Amino acid sequence: MTIAERWLLPDGIEEILPPEAARIEALRRLLLDEYRAWGYDLVIPPSAEYLESLLTGVGHDLDLLTYKITDQTSGRLMGLSADNTQQVARMDAHSLPRDGVARYCYSSNVLHAKATHLLSTRSPIQIGAELYGYSGPESDIEIVSLMLTSLAKADLQNISLDLGHIGIYQALVEASGLPEAAQNELFRLLRQRALPELDTWLAQAPLTDTFKHWFSILPQCHGSLDRLDDWRDRFKDAPETVFTALDTLNTIAQAIRARFPDLKLHLDLAELRDFNYHTGLVFSAFVPGFGQAVARGGRYDSTGRVFGRSRPATGFSSDLKILASQSDGRWREAAGVRAPASTDPALAEAVQQLRAKGERVIQVFSGQTHLDELGCDRELVLEGDQWVVKSLSN
Amino acid sequence: MTIAERWLLPDGIEEILPPEAARIEALRRLLLDEYRAWGYDLVIPPSAEYLESLLTGVGHDLDLLTYKITDQTSGRLMGLSADNTQQVARMDAHSLPRDGVARYCYSSNVLHAKATHLLSTRSPIQIGAELYGYSGPESDIEIVSLMLTSLAKADLQNISLDLGHIGIYQALVEASGLPEAAQNELFRLLRQRALPELDTWLAQAPLTDTFKHWFSILPQCHGSLDRLDDWRDRFKDAPETVFTALDTLNTIAQAIRARFPDLKLHLDLAELRDFNYHTGLVFSAFVPGFGQAVARGGRYDSTGRVFGRSRPATGFSSDLKILASQSDGRWREAAGVRAPASTDPALAEAVQQLRAKGERVIQVFSGQTHLDELGCDRELVLEGDQWVVKSLSN
Repeated sequence: MTIAERWLLPDGIEEILPPEAARIEALRRLLLDEYRAWGYDLVIPPSAEYLESLLTGVGHDLDLLTYKITDQTSGRLMGLSADNTQQVARMDAHSLPRDGVARYCYSSNVLHAKATHLLSTRSPIQIGAELYGYSGPESDIEIVSLMLTSLAKADLQNISLDLGHIGIYQALVEASGLPEAAQNELFRLLRQRALPELDTWLAQAPLTDTFKHWFSILPQCHGSLDRLDDWRDRFKDAPETVFTALDTLNTIAQAIRARFPDLKLHLDLAELRDFNYHTGLVFSAFVPGFGQAVARGGRYDSTGRVFGRSRPATGFSSDLKILASQSDGRWREAAGVRAPASTDPALAEAVQQLRAKGERVIQVFSGQTHLDELGCDRELVLEGDQWVVKSLSN
Repeated sequence: MTIAERWLLPDGIEEILPPEAARIEALRRLLLDEYRAWGYDLVIPPSAEYLESLLTGVGHDLDLLTYKITDQTSGRLMGLSADNTQQVARMDAHSLPRDGVARYCYSSNVLHAKATHLLSTRSPIQIGAELYGYSGPESDIEIVSLMLTSLAKADLQNISLDLGHIGIYQALVEASGLPEAAQNELFRLLRQRALPELDTWLAQAPLTDTFKHWFSILPQCHGSLDRLDDWRDRFKDAPETVFTALDTLNTIAQAIRARFPDLKLHLDLAELRDFNYHTGLVFSAFVPGFGQAVARGGRYDSTGRVFGRSRPATGFSSDLKILASQSDGRWREAAGVRAPASTDPALAEAVQQLRAKGERVIQVFSGQTHLDELGCDRELVLEGDQWVVKSLSN
């Protein structure tokens, strides 16, 4: 092993160097400030907690993403945070017992035991917002609007939005009488959009022909908002709850279209989610040329129940690393002023004043070389008895 | 186990709730902005990396603090970051090969396998700054000055500073010919200031009487700057390197006293450090009534060598949680404006304008109760055809 190889980082775990780190920090502040302006209070979830807090009531996928370590103090198993949503749900239920509507936001490093997709990071910087205590579509509309507004603030261009509603799939499964093991298989096939496999599986599934038909057409039901009436016809005799979900989806989609008229809006009735805690609206934002969602979220009303308080909930999250990579925003490169090696108190005074004005001022030490690496465009020069800022000639 | 107990967090691992989280975030921005103004570039170290990167060249203490997990991809052992300094040293040596002076800062959650002191957290939010590539005291003076300036910006009052120099202890040990196992024991006794135990141990140690005397008086050499001449006399026949270290300590202490005349400055020749990577100046800042240091640091010139590039280095770090707990700063509690449930586009426009001005504006949903929990002091009211901001009567 060469020295360089020896100090390589594990696959999918990144360090962030200048100037990219400053860019991510600027984006982090911009998004948290926007969330705050909408009334979302910052919380900082712990980077590890007992495993049952992290995994109770969530799906198998999140379990596989979660690193387990033993707490030396208690002997109990802890998990490293792999997704903040479940942690904030616990905080809302247990640590923050507000009775009305509560809004929280966060930005925390999480760690995944394996990559969720080929090439995806195992160490996202998750940032997001969650709204608890209100089940009506107004709260979903607010959450989707906040996500879209903050993505626009982050200078992401040509955003498209996919909207779905887990309630449609759930209503069909519930009415179908499918055993749980078979439900898991159906969920997996639909989520992966493995259509030929789905057809083969449906042919032998313990379902009536009507349900076989419905599950086979579900993945075809995606497109623009004006397709909704057509889909209503195709599920004509389905359980009433399917239509309740379609109505909710319509209400939310109409409101989002009115608020963001230039948005590319796409409905998808077969949109399902990995972590298995979603219950209603689900949504994902995309930008051209990037294969994964840049932000995603949905409603997860049941999550708080396992923590002793069931509350309606809706929210979204992003990975700051992905947002920074897809943002067109121009962050000013660090420029600055060089202060020469000198113990003149007047120089110290001049340096302090420049820094107080927000300038980046770098002190040069005696005998220091490689001054071009400092990235300064100006320097402090003594003229008479005054220290003045002069441009550095190239 | 009651439901409440079931969701308790592990000992020493905290979640941070509103409004404390907003206070920590404000402090984080204030400190990072100050570091930036001095030319320190932000880096974001990974939250886990291969164990040999984290632990090569550091002491046993850091090993015991580090959680180990197996990387599923490579099968190699990884460690969770327990201290950012070693990570930034690796980045300076391997990822950021600047040849001149380089300045970096960071703020990252770290996790400790056990508490370093009784009652101390296992999940600090470490924040700090590191300077590479310059060995002269000017860089130590800058690092100490930056630490003191940023603590003052964070509204910490009545700060006192302890200064020591590891080179004094190291010069004596080197000249004494003490075997390595015995060195470790001596280090432990001095670091813990276990003076009766130290005397007992010295009595049977394989040392000449002169060295026994020097090691026994070392812990007594602490006090104000004017004691330095006295200490020079007490070590009169000691190796020359002891005096080089005392001279450096004097130069740095004089400069700091000149720059911060109101500071309580305390020298301590027996100040040693847990993580065992320090080589020169070591320093700690304290505030009255808090038993641990609020910030600490020192020189660690040898660390980069194991990463293939030996560079002089000096730096400091703090725990944001401790700083927030000791800060007298008043952060304005979140107030804000309530927007009533209404679909009037003029209301949406008024809300957007207020948010753009930095106001916190919270949308009320139809039928929403517990409005007092929102923490608003004003509301938007329709007067004629204008939405205007009115105070909320109590």
